[in-house]
Amino acid sequence: MRAVTATGGEPVPADRPDPVAGAGEVLVRVRAAGLNNADLLQVTGTYPAPPGSPPDIPGLELAGEVVACGPGASRFAVGDRVMAVVGGGGQAELAVVHERTAMPVPDGMDWPEAGGFPEVFTTAHDALFTQAGLGPGERVCVHGAAGGVGSAGVQLAATTGARVVATVRREALRAAVEALAGPDGSVRAVDPGGFGRHGPFDVILELIGAPNLPEDVAALAPGGRITVIGVGGGAKAELNLLALMGARGRIHASTLRTRPLEQKADAARRVEAHVLPLVAAGRIRVAVQETFALEEAPAAYARFRAGAKLGKIVLVDAP
Amino acid sequence: MRAVTATGGEPVPADRPDPVAGAGEVLVRVRAAGLNNADLLQVTGTYPAPPGSPPDIPGLELAGEVVACGPGASRFAVGDRVMAVVGGGGQAELAVVHERTAMPVPDGMDWPEAGGFPEVFTTAHDALFTQAGLGPGERVCVHGAAGGVGSAGVQLAATTGARVVATVRREALRAAVEALAGPDGSVRAVDPGGFGRHGPFDVILELIGAPNLPEDVAALAPGGRITVIGVGGGAKAELNLLALMGARGRIHASTLRTRPLEQKADAARRVEAHVLPLVAAGRIRVAVQETFALEEAPAAYARFRAGAKLGKIVLVDAP
Repeated sequence: MRAVTATGGEPVPADRPDPVAGAGEVLVRVRAAGLNNADLLQVTGTYPAPPGSPPDIPGLELAGEVVACGPGASRFAVGDRVMAVVGGGGQAELAVVHERTAMPVPDGMDWPEAGGFPEVFTTAHDALFTQAGLGPGERVCVHGAAGGVGSAGVQLAATTGARVVATVRREALRAAVEALAGPDGSVRAVDPGGFGRHGPFDVILELIGAPNLPEDVAALAPGGRITVIGVGGGAKAELNLLALMGARGRIHASTLRTRPLEQKADAARRVEAHVLPLVAAGRIRVAVQETFALEEAPAAYARFRAGAKLGKIVLVDAP
Repeated sequence: MRAVTATGGEPVPADRPDPVAGAGEVLVRVRAAGLNNADLLQVTGTYPAPPGSPPDIPGLELAGEVVACGPGASRFAVGDRVMAVVGGGGQAELAVVHERTAMPVPDGMDWPEAGGFPEVFTTAHDALFTQAGLGPGERVCVHGAAGGVGSAGVQLAATTGARVVATVRREALRAAVEALAGPDGSVRAVDPGGFGRHGPFDVILELIGAPNLPEDVAALAPGGRITVIGVGGGAKAELNLLALMGARGRIHASTLRTRPLEQKADAARRVEAHVLPLVAAGRIRVAVQETFALEEAPAAYARFRAGAKLGKIVLVDAP
């Protein structure tokens, strides 16, 4: 099969052996696979793939058709449209996925949307609901809201009736971020500078990291939660424990990728139950900035690195 | 009435007007009142009493007999032995307590124990169970374990079947801390230096603050929780967000004192339900280092400041 390959250098298309579905796994003919920050870290050699994932093929999410079922795999049949978070190896013509981590692709969702959905929506859903316990009517701040996880988080929060403040560095993208939640106007996109004046917040989805943390803590409502799932702006933060005590606040930090299979499967079940119906109802959509063919992987990665995008860059190989 | 009074200076006994029980409150003839770190901060003027509490009389906890019930107060009758966390004013002959925050004193618990119980056991219980969700068989680290909250936390954790590592700065106190949990030997008292090598920990009860935080994060088990309720060692911490993400960890920080009445009442109900039966069964005891009469308040505060104690310093006025 053809696959994006990278071992410490630039990601390039190359030939690789076809993978084989093991016990409980399905083999998927990949039609779309989104790019994520972790792919950038992996291709530069700073974030190795976890055990059991291809070490040299990036790709944390994919969508496609089941072409074979391994021993004992019974959730899906050959021909079913599925999408999933994977530990790596998604950016290829073929990939194996444990059936418990796969989700059905709703009718009406096209391949680029499906390929850009699993990682960002599962990450944002886990952070907002499973970790931070976001409840109806709470006040939410989403940092880095124009990105993949950010744009997912804005929409997920808005569907709960939350009042959402979305920080977006590029002014030109703010109107589009506000429009993500539909015409109800519950999302306000603002400059990251001095975001705390738009608080207090019950939940803060932190995708930038250390530079925001002091202002995050200062902007917490009593009982507020900061949920850290990205540190693109830096990892070493200053934390005023007395201020956090005063707010009776919490800082959660998490990644999906290092979790055991059962937790990834549980996260997928929660997204299936909560988010896929919203997708089917047209209340959630995947923001796709641009698509590239798998053979154009270098250009896709260059576009991803360039930033200034709304939502996802997706590799596609639709028939 | 006589009361310890302090307005930015040394705490001294003085005469003050008798308080009157308002709606839902009981008037208590105080028999014992423990000293806490917050009292030290209040008497030096850096931690004012919350609204509704006497500004000039310290004392966050008390035990005594009900001598009058305010309008609508029905949980207790005159003569009942009660104990409670209060916003202030506990170190006096008389104090008013909202009946929802008061707990009955179990038979067999003497006044010094009862006067030193509410604040530290409610704080430790809230931090370990309500905040950090400590479950059976988890691995726990309690910092500052010879102090009031620490000695309560060690015992509470040990009753769940937790394996407890207790950091105790003074070597001479370590055997006594290990003995707090009875002869079963589930508590190991260690030097704070390099405590992380005794990990990983599912829950860390942090009473020292900033100096411990980097090692706390490094010693977290996957899904571990750090619950910060004291910053005697400093409040401004360094936090490596990437390390916290790797552990899928959480930092909780809280205080009891600033909470609304309903949350204080809820915390008291949980202690009633969970801890008082353990006290009655002899499985939990209050470590009291030394008692002083109310008129000896300056000596009591001096003893509290001197440290090197196991558990509580309590003012007593038993009949």
